[in-house]
Amino acid sequence: MINKISPLAPKILKSMKPISGVNIYTYCANLYNYNRLDVLLFIFDSELNIAEVFTNSKTRSITIDWNIKNLKKGKIKALLVNSGNANTFTGKVGELALNSLVNFIGRKFKINSNKIFVASTGVIGEPFPFKKIIKSIDNYDKNKKSNWLNAAKAIMTTDTFPKLKSVNTSIQGKKVIINGIAKGSGMIAPNMATMLGFIFTDANVSRPVLQSLLKEINENSFNSITVDGDESTNDTVMLISTNNSKNKLINNKNDKLLKNFKVKLNEVMSDLAEQIVKDGEGASKLVEVSVVGAKNANSAKLIARSVAESPLVKTAIHGEDPNWGRIIMAIGKTKEDINTTKLKIKIGNKLVATNGSKSLKYKESELKKYMKSNKIKILIDLGVGKSNAKMITCDYSYDYIRINASYKT
Amino acid sequence: MINKISPLAPKILKSMKPISGVNIYTYCANLYNYNRLDVLLFIFDSELNIAEVFTNSKTRSITIDWNIKNLKKGKIKALLVNSGNANTFTGKVGELALNSLVNFIGRKFKINSNKIFVASTGVIGEPFPFKKIIKSIDNYDKNKKSNWLNAAKAIMTTDTFPKLKSVNTSIQGKKVIINGIAKGSGMIAPNMATMLGFIFTDANVSRPVLQSLLKEINENSFNSITVDGDESTNDTVMLISTNNSKNKLINNKNDKLLKNFKVKLNEVMSDLAEQIVKDGEGASKLVEVSVVGAKNANSAKLIARSVAESPLVKTAIHGEDPNWGRIIMAIGKTKEDINTTKLKIKIGNKLVATNGSKSLKYKESELKKYMKSNKIKILIDLGVGKSNAKMITCDYSYDYIRINASYKT
Repeated sequence: MINKISPLAPKILKSMKPISGVNIYTYCANLYNYNRLDVLLFIFDSELNIAEVFTNSKTRSITIDWNIKNLKKGKIKALLVNSGNANTFTGKVGELALNSLVNFIGRKFKINSNKIFVASTGVIGEPFPFKKIIKSIDNYDKNKKSNWLNAAKAIMTTDTFPKLKSVNTSIQGKKVIINGIAKGSGMIAPNMATMLGFIFTDANVSRPVLQSLLKEINENSFNSITVDGDESTNDTVMLISTNNSKNKLINNKNDKLLKNFKVKLNEVMSDLAEQIVKDGEGASKLVEVSVVGAKNANSAKLIARSVAESPLVKTAIHGEDPNWGRIIMAIGKTKEDINTTKLKIKIGNKLVATNGSKSLKYKESELKKYMKSNKIKILIDLGVGKSNAKMITCDYSYDYIRINASYKT
Repeated sequence: MINKISPLAPKILKSMKPISGVNIYTYCANLYNYNRLDVLLFIFDSELNIAEVFTNSKTRSITIDWNIKNLKKGKIKALLVNSGNANTFTGKVGELALNSLVNFIGRKFKINSNKIFVASTGVIGEPFPFKKIIKSIDNYDKNKKSNWLNAAKAIMTTDTFPKLKSVNTSIQGKKVIINGIAKGSGMIAPNMATMLGFIFTDANVSRPVLQSLLKEINENSFNSITVDGDESTNDTVMLISTNNSKNKLINNKNDKLLKNFKVKLNEVMSDLAEQIVKDGEGASKLVEVSVVGAKNANSAKLIARSVAESPLVKTAIHGEDPNWGRIIMAIGKTKEDINTTKLKIKIGNKLVATNGSKSLKYKESELKKYMKSNKIKILIDLGVGKSNAKMITCDYSYDYIRINASYKT
C-alpha cells in the first residue's frame, strides 16, 4: 500500500550537487512486495571523519551497536543503509546476518569492516534479509553511480516524499557544501517509524568538532520533533566530512570561524527535521510549540514535548479547534512547577490565556480562521525564568489511525 | 453530539441498593445544549468520614484545592458534583464562583462550608456557571430524592454508559455494603477527559484507615488504567463511609478483619476502572498489559504504562495486528535497563518473543483469530526480578480522532 503524498510536501524537489569523494549507489533488493529502491550504499574515495548520534532506546537495533564499536576510531569508508527491515530484536541470527553483509562489502570493495557503518529501518523482529541485499549489490554494475535523489528515495519506508536539503556556506572565505538526506515516520508493512538522517560536508573540521556540532545541533533539530512520541529502536543521525574544503583545519568547537557553518548546518538539519514532521503519518498541519520563560532548558523541553505529544491537543488541532484548555492540561501533567498566574498562552498572535484564566480580549471566533491554516504556532510563556525550547509536531488525523492499523498484506 | 454506546458496554445495568444516611439529589441545570441531568448532590444525614485521592496535575482545578483544605478534618456532610464545566484555570472569578455555590448549599441545607466537598468535570477555562447550578437546586423539591443510576448519569460527559458497581461483604460477620459510581473519558463540547469516582460504604472503619485503603487500592485500580495518557486537571476518587455497619470500629489498616472488605473494595474500584476503559473514547477492544519479573514495582509500572500508552501499539491492536515489534519498541523507549535475552512476550497464551528474538514456535496466523476478540492480553516477562504491574487500556480507533477533533457547535 502506498499512501497519498502529504499535503505538506514541498512542491519542488531541488537537485543536490555532488560532493567530491562521495560515491552513491542505490539498489533494488526486493525487500518490499513491489519494485522500488531499498538499499543505499555510499563508498568514499578515502577514509572520512564521521560523527553519529543515535536512539536512547534500550531495545536498540544491533546496527547501532555495530556503529558504536566503529565510532571509537571514527573513520568511515562505506555506509550501507537499507529500508524494509530494522534488524532489531533478531538475536544471534541477526548478528550473524549483519556480519555476513559487512564482510561481503569489505571483500567486494576492499574495505576493513571497522570502517563500514550500517543503518537499517523497517519491520522489527523479522529475519534480516542479508542474502537479498548481498545479491542486489553483487549483481550490480559498479560503474553505474546513483544520485542524491535516489539515495533519499532508497531509505524511505512510508515516507510519502524523499527528504533532501543542500546549502552552500564558507569557512575562512573558502567554499563549503552541506548535503543532507533523511527519512521519517511511515509504515508499509508493520514497520517502525524510524528516523534516519545523513549529513555530508567537505568542511575541513576535525572529528571531535564534528561530533560536538552534531550533538549540539541535533538537540534543536531532530531531537525537537515528534510525530507520536514513539521512539524508534533505530534512530540515527550521521555527520560525515570529506575535509576537502580549502579552509585550514578547525579543531576547536568554539572557533569563531565556524559561525557561518554552524548556522548553515543547523539550517540543513532543522529543514530535514521539519520535512519529517510534514510527512508525519497522516499529518495535515505542522505545529510549532514554543516554550519561553522556563526555569531551565530541561523544564522548557519537557513542557513543549508534553503539549506536542498530547493526543487531545493534536486531535483538537486536526479539528481546527483552538481548545487551549487542553494545552493547560498538557502543561499540568508534566508535574513541572507552574505559577498559573504568570502563565501566558498565545495561539498565532492571539493571547488566549493570562493571569490564571482566559484572556479578556480572547474571542474564539477570531482564531477560527487561523486554525484553518496548515501551520499552527503555540507560544507558552511560563514567566518564571529565561530558558526556551521548541518542538515541531503535526496533528493527529484519521489517517494516522488508518496507516498504523492497516494489516500487513 | 451524543456518541453511540461503546461496543464494550455492559449489557445490563444492575440497580444498586440504597445506603442508609446517604441521600441523592440530581438536577438539570442546563449546562449542556440539551436536556440531561448535569448536577449531583449528596446530602448525608450526619457527618461522615471521607478519604480522597486526586490528580497530580500542576494545573489542577480549584475544586481540588477546596477539597484538600476540607480534607484536613475529613468530615463530609454534602458532596456536589457537576459535569459540563471543570472550573479549572478560571482564576479569581472561578474561585468566587465556587465560594458562592458552596455558601448557597451551606445556607440552604444548614451545613458548615468546611464539610461540603465539590468535584467538577467538563470544559477548562470557561466561566464556571454557578448561577445556573444554584438556580436548579433552589427550584427543586427537597423531598424528591433521586437514585444511584441517576447519580451515575448526572456526572457523565461523553461517557456512553453510566458506571455503577455494588457489592455486599462483611466485617466480623456484620453485613457491609460498598456502592461506587464513576465517570470516565469522553467529550461533548471540547471537554477534558476527567476521571471521577465516588465510593460509598457503611463499613465501621476509621478515617485514617479509609484514606490508606483508598490510596493503596487506587494504585491498582484507577491508577492502572489509561485511555490516552492525558492526565486530567480534575481527577478525583472519594471513599465515604457512614460507619453504620454493626462491626466494631476498625482503626488499624493492617487489621485482619479487613481482609474481605479490602478484596471487595478492590473489586468495586477495579470494576469501575475497567468500565471507564471500556468506555474510552472510540474504544473497541479492552487491552490488559501485564509486566512480571521486573526489578522493582516502579520499573514494572513504567514499562506497562509505556506499552499501554503507545499510539503504535494501540493502533496495531485496533487493526487486529499482532505486531509485537511495537511492544519491543515501547519497552525500549522507557530507558529502563532491559536484558533482551531474558525478555519474554506473550500475546494471549502464545509466546511470540524469547531469547532475544522471535519465538521459533510463533506463527502469526495462529494469533489472527485471537486478535479479533474484544479483550487482548499482553504479558511481558522481563526476567530480571520479582515485581509486577498491570495496566488496562483500550485500542486507538478512528472514533478517538473523530470524537476529539469534532468542533464545539
